[in-house]
Amino acid sequence: MNFCSQCGEKVRFAVPEGDDRSRYLCDACGTIHYQNPRIVAGTLPVSGSKVLLCKRAIAPRKGYWTLPAGYMENAETTQQAAIRETHEEANAEVTLADLYTLIDLPHINQVYMIFRAELVGGFSAGVESLEVALFDEHEIPWEELAFPTIERTLRHFYHDRPLGHFPLHSSTITPEDRERYFGSA
Amino acid sequence: MNFCSQCGEKVRFAVPEGDDRSRYLCDACGTIHYQNPRIVAGTLPVSGSKVLLCKRAIAPRKGYWTLPAGYMENAETTQQAAIRETHEEANAEVTLADLYTLIDLPHINQVYMIFRAELVGGFSAGVESLEVALFDEHEIPWEELAFPTIERTLRHFYHDRPLGHFPLHSSTITPEDRERYFGSA
Repeated sequence: MNFCSQCGEKVRFAVPEGDDRSRYLCDACGTIHYQNPRIVAGTLPVSGSKVLLCKRAIAPRKGYWTLPAGYMENAETTQQAAIRETHEEANAEVTLADLYTLIDLPHINQVYMIFRAELVGGFSAGVESLEVALFDEHEIPWEELAFPTIERTLRHFYHDRPLGHFPLHSSTITPEDRERYFGSA
Repeated sequence: MNFCSQCGEKVRFAVPEGDDRSRYLCDACGTIHYQNPRIVAGTLPVSGSKVLLCKRAIAPRKGYWTLPAGYMENAETTQQAAIRETHEEANAEVTLADLYTLIDLPHINQVYMIFRAELVGGFSAGVESLEVALFDEHEIPWEELAFPTIERTLRHFYHDRPLGHFPLHSSTITPEDRERYFGSA
């Protein structure tokens, strides 16, 4: 951020009076520009014994497999965002179950929220996907998953499924986790 | 948003190519300025039979009672945000339990995430609070709560406590809910 989005003057990065962290400040109009984490909402779509994955058609991690997920938009709910992303990436309708993984990625200011979901009807590659397919557990392309959030969500699912109990899993992905992950990809 | 925060030129509000909703666009440098919901993280601090509430010292809803909560910051986790807000508003240390309410407010682009928590040690009013106090259920100032998210979280808690089971409650607050709430305050 270089300029004030309100008045167009130059901003500076400093701690506002009464605050304890640096913000982009506009001395001309007085606006403080707060920046906050973004939610990535998505689903783990299940059809019988299989899970739906999408092969990414866009950067980052083009060509790698992911669960349908993307940035939550203004004016929608987390559940609407998860359903919309599933529709956009896989042309798939789903019935949502509970929130399943809540994963913080503080180093990139993201919070992942993945809901379990039941696939209803067919599917096909949306514009951001090269391919969409159903996988049994032994078919999951573990070495070709796009992000550590996706691997973690699938690992939880295959742990919980035999137990028939799917509690919310909250966790954090650190820069070290991420480096280890992309290092091995 | 009137000006591009990257280059300082005027922005326009229109649907980018390949997108399906309007964004602030800079024709000069090509930046698309996405805007996304913000997370409000907080706690429901419990001490024995009592719950801790804070009387707000700032707008909006100055003088009304709330659970400690506030905007999640970049570079922190949802749990760290909840703990930090509790410390800032009530000078209170807490041990977090699970996420308890996840409440979408799509009309104001917020997602509330309130964690159950155990109060550890003392408390006092932080700079954003006029007063901080512990309440038994019959003492809760239901008519003087700051926000419908707070009332909803407390209602869930008093429903669940006798059952000894505190599942995650996901819900949405609509403009009608909000109007009804503030209309009766």
